[in-house]
Amino acid sequence: MENALSPRIYQQVADRITEQIRSGVLPPGSRVPSLRLLSRQMGVNMATINRAYWMLENRGILESRPSSGFYVRPEAAAPSAPSGSKGDFPLQLTSPKKLTSNLETFKYMFSALANPSNLFVSMGIPGLAVLKSQSLQKSLRSSYARPGLKALDYNWFLGYEPLRRQLARHYLDCGLEVPPNQIVMTSGAVESLNVAYRLLMRPGDIVAVESPIILSTMCLQHYGVRVLEIPSDPEQGMDLDFLERALKKFKIRSCLAMPNFRNPMGSLMSDERKKRLVEMLARKGVTLIESDVYGDVHFGKTRPRPAKAFDKADNVILVSSFSKSVAPGVKVGWVLAGGRTMDVFATRWVNTNGTNTLMESAMADFMERGEYRRHLRKLQRHCEESLGRLTQAVLKHFPEGTKVGQPKGGVVSWVELPEKVDGLRLHKEALAQNILVFPGPSFCLRPRFRNFISLGFGSRWTDRLEKAIETLGQLAKKQLAEKH
Amino acid sequence: MENALSPRIYQQVADRITEQIRSGVLPPGSRVPSLRLLSRQMGVNMATINRAYWMLENRGILESRPSSGFYVRPEAAAPSAPSGSKGDFPLQLTSPKKLTSNLETFKYMFSALANPSNLFVSMGIPGLAVLKSQSLQKSLRSSYARPGLKALDYNWFLGYEPLRRQLARHYLDCGLEVPPNQIVMTSGAVESLNVAYRLLMRPGDIVAVESPIILSTMCLQHYGVRVLEIPSDPEQGMDLDFLERALKKFKIRSCLAMPNFRNPMGSLMSDERKKRLVEMLARKGVTLIESDVYGDVHFGKTRPRPAKAFDKADNVILVSSFSKSVAPGVKVGWVLAGGRTMDVFATRWVNTNGTNTLMESAMADFMERGEYRRHLRKLQRHCEESLGRLTQAVLKHFPEGTKVGQPKGGVVSWVELPEKVDGLRLHKEALAQNILVFPGPSFCLRPRFRNFISLGFGSRWTDRLEKAIETLGQLAKKQLAEKH
Repeated sequence: MENALSPRIYQQVADRITEQIRSGVLPPGSRVPSLRLLSRQMGVNMATINRAYWMLENRGILESRPSSGFYVRPEAAAPSAPSGSKGDFPLQLTSPKKLTSNLETFKYMFSALANPSNLFVSMGIPGLAVLKSQSLQKSLRSSYARPGLKALDYNWFLGYEPLRRQLARHYLDCGLEVPPNQIVMTSGAVESLNVAYRLLMRPGDIVAVESPIILSTMCLQHYGVRVLEIPSDPEQGMDLDFLERALKKFKIRSCLAMPNFRNPMGSLMSDERKKRLVEMLARKGVTLIESDVYGDVHFGKTRPRPAKAFDKADNVILVSSFSKSVAPGVKVGWVLAGGRTMDVFATRWVNTNGTNTLMESAMADFMERGEYRRHLRKLQRHCEESLGRLTQAVLKHFPEGTKVGQPKGGVVSWVELPEKVDGLRLHKEALAQNILVFPGPSFCLRPRFRNFISLGFGSRWTDRLEKAIETLGQLAKKQLAEKH
Repeated sequence: MENALSPRIYQQVADRITEQIRSGVLPPGSRVPSLRLLSRQMGVNMATINRAYWMLENRGILESRPSSGFYVRPEAAAPSAPSGSKGDFPLQLTSPKKLTSNLETFKYMFSALANPSNLFVSMGIPGLAVLKSQSLQKSLRSSYARPGLKALDYNWFLGYEPLRRQLARHYLDCGLEVPPNQIVMTSGAVESLNVAYRLLMRPGDIVAVESPIILSTMCLQHYGVRVLEIPSDPEQGMDLDFLERALKKFKIRSCLAMPNFRNPMGSLMSDERKKRLVEMLARKGVTLIESDVYGDVHFGKTRPRPAKAFDKADNVILVSSFSKSVAPGVKVGWVLAGGRTMDVFATRWVNTNGTNTLMESAMADFMERGEYRRHLRKLQRHCEESLGRLTQAVLKHFPEGTKVGQPKGGVVSWVELPEKVDGLRLHKEALAQNILVFPGPSFCLRPRFRNFISLGFGSRWTDRLEKAIETLGQLAKKQLAEKH
């Protein structure tokens, strides 16, 4: 609906300007075309051009000068893409034992998260800032009011059928045709992952994962598998050439990927690259486990397709949930399991039994009434604006040369600090001031990304958050000053 | 509160009469003491005696004859205890492979469960018959109304703290002192079990389980363990002498037990036996995983203590949920994990991440307002009366010699048919008439309990249910007639 009636033309304008800056057509410090001129050139009204410029200003790419117009920011202060994990990346397996030893890090981190005095600035979840409370409550009420208290009864089978139909309809809009009876509901995306792992992984198996890895990869420790990290790029996503070499060298059993706005890099794989990934794995009979939890939080004109949309061989298991797109407390997830539906169901059943009928029927109602779609539009705009604010704050407070990723969706940005800054030390010193930031090395099984941190932009922007970014910048500058 | 103000004296009266019948003081067909006489003898008012007699009549133990009084039923028709799994029980391990092959049975069963035309008569869950819908809805509303939409936010740590405090208070009434910060919330009892399994079990380990086993034991297939079945008795529970021999012969790693009203037998272990079990396992360093999901659904005067109440060595992990005591759709469970709390938490985190805050805060409110206690009283009476009706129906319709277990709590009764009846065939013929009954062999890893079935008595008693029991009886009688 929204895409058809109000295509995001401002996004196209912004992309065009960004491209011109990148290619050098518009060098740092130069004046960009006036609103009037570009409006005429592109056949777009001035308000749209104005929104595009405002967004670029918000992201620190342009700056407005009173009664003069918009200019490209001086280079040093503009956001540029942080590095990925390419370069000297070793083709090397990590043993199950090494994975288990991560448990201590995990416990340490969670005691920090559990402390309500700490402000968590790397959070990969949109806050509840834009959720229309009354509307969801209405859905919950109508769910509870179903005759015979059905909402409190067992979900004996795949999960609440009307919700599975709504999801199938939603995926159709995402370019993916899936029958409702191949969707298995779960207690959230992490359970979805575990169900896929349990079904597919046997001790000793080799599993390819994108590096930097995310927390949910921690689950792997329970399956006795060996992990092969595949480098990835903040813009392009997984390094497919590397993966191709890896597939030749090792007998890989399954591969985990998050092609749409992957936490912590925010990378988005193009359709061509998704297609190549799916076909490459299918040829070798390697199952792809795709997490698409951020797919609905996109800033562009169209919702990026899941890799599963290119899955002709029934070789991709897609997992997702409402945790990132509605609220983490919803705890409703699902698995698109194709021909493996009954196995996925049986595996989920022995993991947590039935699912939460009350929440599932509430979410079905929320989708049916068009509230999910409306909510997504608000959320997408909120996150996009929030990324702008975060970028502004980092460019203002962080040391010169800091690079802030500009993902096209999701809620996390990957930040590269000057090489001399130690991210782990930054994390420790920040925690002493009740700021919890995830440093680059916390996303790796081997020492890597020393001078990186991840910053989330999903929450409501507050003075406290702005202040935290300032403090982080000061701590980083202090490190640099010491070393001179 | 209830226990202090209105002790269930009628239950004591009923126990006394039952004991006198068993010991032969009151033989079949004899007249029991009049209400007036027993009232005087026991110093209890006549209404109480009347209620006790009425309950025994309901259970098929007594019968009332107009203007004559109550009589002990003729032996053939009275319920007597079905057999347990003693006798020629082998001390033998079952391999992980054998467990996995159960998956086909599982799929078969679930397709039967998923068919809404089938009436499931072995259900181990109380129906929603007695749940006061408005009261729970009030809790849900107040949970949702928490400021800042907290009910939809992440549960970062152990789970909603006020609920853990309410549970700690509740366990204190059950004779078990546990600090709230040693309670880890989960997405239900099955997840609680999985968390314990993941934490404790390694491939090749030997796990002792009570036989007949229940469905949730199916989870074990994912852990590569070997299973050692321990026989149990419908009245006494697990055969501790057998367990003692097993502990001598094998290096057992952990033991699963449900000392309070175990599904499918409904057995209740005495305090002495619980104590012996806990101490025996502690001496050998074998962890006891205790499921206490039925503990709150007791008919007697006091809530039976969990085995964990006797745990001095921090060697028992108790798992439970609200699925049996409130409604299966609540999907709120917990683990009492003692010194292993952080490990249990980390394991749950990587299994399903945070838990459902909305439901947890609703349940905290439900407990705080005394509604849980009130609900339990209603549920206990409902189940007790329902067991009476089921017993009556079975004695009326089933072949002579059928024995119906009379558990003192829970929602499942274990039924022994005449030896010549084949339970599996009964199951198949009943399913053709849309009645789903679990036959004895479905609870076993080896052929056993051929002439047994399990019957649930938690649902609302309906004509359809009565009719289903009648049909089962006819099918069983038909089998007997054929063989003559």
